[in-house]
Amino acid sequence: MNFNDKNITIVGLGMEGGSFAIAIKEFIKPRNLFAVDIDENILIAAEKLGVISKGFKNPADILGKSDIVIMCIYPSLVIEFMKEHMEDFKSGCIVTDVAGVKRNIVNELDGIVRDDIDFIPGHPMAGNEFRGFLYADKKIFEGCSYLLTPTEQNKEENLVVIETLARKIGASIVFRTDIDTHDTMIAYASQLIHVIASSIVNSDYYSDDITLFSGGSFKSATRVANINPDLWTDAFLENKDNLIKQIDAFSSNIQKLKDALIEEDADLIHGFLKESFTRSNRHTNKFK
Amino acid sequence: MNFNDKNITIVGLGMEGGSFAIAIKEFIKPRNLFAVDIDENILIAAEKLGVISKGFKNPADILGKSDIVIMCIYPSLVIEFMKEHMEDFKSGCIVTDVAGVKRNIVNELDGIVRDDIDFIPGHPMAGNEFRGFLYADKKIFEGCSYLLTPTEQNKEENLVVIETLARKIGASIVFRTDIDTHDTMIAYASQLIHVIASSIVNSDYYSDDITLFSGGSFKSATRVANINPDLWTDAFLENKDNLIKQIDAFSSNIQKLKDALIEEDADLIHGFLKESFTRSNRHTNKFK
Repeated sequence: MNFNDKNITIVGLGMEGGSFAIAIKEFIKPRNLFAVDIDENILIAAEKLGVISKGFKNPADILGKSDIVIMCIYPSLVIEFMKEHMEDFKSGCIVTDVAGVKRNIVNELDGIVRDDIDFIPGHPMAGNEFRGFLYADKKIFEGCSYLLTPTEQNKEENLVVIETLARKIGASIVFRTDIDTHDTMIAYASQLIHVIASSIVNSDYYSDDITLFSGGSFKSATRVANINPDLWTDAFLENKDNLIKQIDAFSSNIQKLKDALIEEDADLIHGFLKESFTRSNRHTNKFK
Repeated sequence: MNFNDKNITIVGLGMEGGSFAIAIKEFIKPRNLFAVDIDENILIAAEKLGVISKGFKNPADILGKSDIVIMCIYPSLVIEFMKEHMEDFKSGCIVTDVAGVKRNIVNELDGIVRDDIDFIPGHPMAGNEFRGFLYADKKIFEGCSYLLTPTEQNKEENLVVIETLARKIGASIVFRTDIDTHDTMIAYASQLIHVIASSIVNSDYYSDDITLFSGGSFKSATRVANINPDLWTDAFLENKDNLIKQIDAFSSNIQKLKDALIEEDADLIHGFLKESFTRSNRHTNKFK
């Protein structure tokens, strides 16, 4: 598939949007790579750095020429943006997003997106724990899982466009699933992990001396405690039923281990650890 | 400090003992580097690979010539080993261990170690999630924290020997602390992290498909779920009071977030995440 007759526009040049820009410039080579951001300085910088062809503060100035639009702004802002600029989009364009929870964005846009615009809900499982264009990094997509939750309105050929783009920028898994499965599994494999990391770090025992007593395991487990509070508060609340279910299931495991410690039930502890050893061993490339 | 007139003996050539052997051979260059193991094949292999000078199945054959002995076997076996071979050690030798919890080993050996042997309780916060000599890797010590919990019997000059050895093999932090502080902080910064990793993995939602829905955060948080059940069951039980305290504090944070989700208390969630963001940001080198 050839992108060199396509104009791609990224809305929001933060860490994620910036990473898309760098990766798309290198691996996709579209006719033009545009960006929209409210921060003019970032647009100027990205232009000077050669990351984008041109930046626009006013979306109306460029949406009409954009074949593919990638929305890299907060999910709530995506909905606002789409509503406000619905008439500015080019007929036949593909719009995709990166929201980590899919239900709201899909529900809110249902019925209000023009028939000649194909909005494809996307979720690249890629990122780092930082914010802003300066932390953009094409490597975040390397080997990532890129999920799509297609709607009935999506055209097959457009899904293939986004899937091709995802693979070209580095995703090793590109996978279509339904919104329920997506939001359920994300509550487990992503949101719960962030809840845990924050809960570890917000301890009375955490201090500037913690590096004295910690090895790689602590660092790994708390890396994502460096969380974006605005983004994740919204995402947690949006998916609260699923997340509460995951917190309950996890807490019941923790409680099981605690009870076994109180009872000094070595067999139960051993069995529990053996189980996690066996499960995670299946997914581990020991010599990597 | 010069080690080239010293014989160093490693007891137990597993992942940790093997890593010591490789690092000591490269960075310490002792007169001889010996190893004791119950598995003759490992000793032969390590000898052929040039990692050790010579291996011994019978500790009595080599302890009498060993100036420094590093015990890399299970903590309970260290105690047994020391009792059984007390008369075999060389007069004036330094013995150190790597147990992750220090109270039992120090208490059990108190009063039974010969006056002319200096047992220095050590804990290199270094390792990987694998087992056995084949996973030995000198890099595990790179930049690690190496803790000592000296007793009143330890001679200052011998503490300096072990501290020098620790720095030479790669530790960036070499730190003396007391047993209580050590075991308390280890319950938080290491044992709790392993309890959490296992509790994440032992979920009904964990399956072979999990990589579809997970990014780096899940992988980081569950890396250590690939846990050695024998070693960690013992370590958890040995430190159970401290670990239970940590589980309680952590669970109460998780519960706080869960309650806030139920109440849709966005301010509380945001404040909680902001706090963990601020705390962990202090320890993060963003451009690393």
